Amino acid sequence: MRNIKLILEYDGTNYHGWQSQAGTGKPTIQDALELAIRKLTREEIKTYSSGRTDAGVHALGHVINFQTNSTLPSEAWSPALNHLLPEDIRVQSAEEVSADFHSRFSARGKIYRYRILNRRAPSALHRNYAWHVNMPLNLRRMRFAADKLIGEHDFSAFRSSGCTAKTTVRTLKALTVKKSGEFVEINLEADAFLMHMARNIVGTLVEVGIGKYTAEEVNIILESCDRRKGGRTAPACGLSLLKVFY
Amino acid sequence: MRNIKLILEYDGTNYHGWQSQAGTGKPTIQDALELAIRKLTREEIKTYSSGRTDAGVHALGHVINFQTNSTLPSEAWSPALNHLLPEDIRVQSAEEVSADFHSRFSARGKIYRYRILNRRAPSALHRNYAWHVNMPLNLRRMRFAADKLIGEHDFSAFRSSGCTAKTTVRTLKALTVKKSGEFVEINLEADAFLMHMARNIVGTLVEVGIGKYTAEEVNIILESCDRRKGGRTAPACGLSLLKVFY
Repeated sequence: MRNIKLILEYDGTNYHGWQSQAGTGKPTIQDALELAIRKLTREEIKTYSSGRTDAGVHALGHVINFQTNSTLPSEAWSPALNHLLPEDIRVQSAEEVSADFHSRFSARGKIYRYRILNRRAPSALHRNYAWHVNMPLNLRRMRFAADKLIGEHDFSAFRSSGCTAKTTVRTLKALTVKKSGEFVEINLEADAFLMHMARNIVGTLVEVGIGKYTAEEVNIILESCDRRKGGRTAPACGLSLLKVFY
Repeated sequence: MRNIKLILEYDGTNYHGWQSQAGTGKPTIQDALELAIRKLTREEIKTYSSGRTDAGVHALGHVINFQTNSTLPSEAWSPALNHLLPEDIRVQSAEEVSADFHSRFSARGKIYRYRILNRRAPSALHRNYAWHVNMPLNLRRMRFAADKLIGEHDFSAFRSSGCTAKTTVRTLKALTVKKSGEFVEINLEADAFLMHMARNIVGTLVEVGIGKYTAEEVNIILESCDRRKGGRTAPACGLSLLKVFY
């Protein structure tokens, strides 16, 4: 069997996240991709993903892999699959990898980007790709609070109540807050993320930015390990999975 | 009667351009906007636009005006209309202007931006907002050709065969070609544009960028005043109306 690794870009607006939700009739990226791979290979392919994404979250570098007996050359996978996929999912690259490569278990880290449109007027063009925050954000305070979260911590206060991960200690390697025109971009890099962790961190930083919390209070939230103390969950549409490291 | 000026942002993906196409059942920005204004004012409002846009073209600063007897305060128009409009059309600002202001006849110039995604892999996220050109573009040659088009010229070679404008001389004030990451952005500023003029100029510049035409040949195309000699029409999705000057 060959082991094929794909890097995907997708617009998550019209999907209920990556993972198949069998029997619900809800469209997912996994369903659309597996359908295309099955059409191409005529095999009962199962894909392995670097992780789940929430409904409405986008990706520029989502990594998946699958086993196949197909003899299709590596350079043919991208154009062949893109021909079969809906246009809001595009394979960026495909390569044959060693048999022991697993998108999820081999991953060493991930980078997410969160985009906030920080201006008064709402946007038609960015409605599905950024969180519209119409109150002024104090970026200096947000960066000060972000620094409190960097490092190895128990991130229980920032995980969803539905999160089923067995361990809650993660290492947040970088958390930057950058102004870019009318946008504020928050980049988050960690060895792994708990469910909703990226969106809960962003939601809390925005509450710091509008003056609801101080940086010191973010530290207290983190140390409480209590989700009920944390800030709001930022909307999914602003989040994109940028890169998975191996 | 009051004369109200609106600045609109819209995602043109799902519309057949600005202008109403009565009886065709095709959705247009004008229809959606007039419906919202009529709901709000309960008057038979007619809007006047700074110009038409093609199906699939976007806008960040499309200007329109209309006459009304409504006493709604100026600051209430934007939120009230945005509440009634589909989310891919957003009023950015509203103000009461003098009776002699007309969006089209008072306009002194316009700026359009054209975005090209210049990389090998197709994009899911930019599919409706940029032209994907997968061949390398020589920007130096494109800029050299662009310089030939700046100034007052008869732009007949760059107007659509369906264009009904009585005069074909326009002044192209600026035409810049800028690299921005994986994108090439072309900005076009003119006193006014002929039908498809912006898209035909971009299409021709891209043919220069891939080596099909030289800058000197663009000059010959311009002087021919013959549309059949010109380059291809760039797709609508990459084009956005940025600003109208008064």
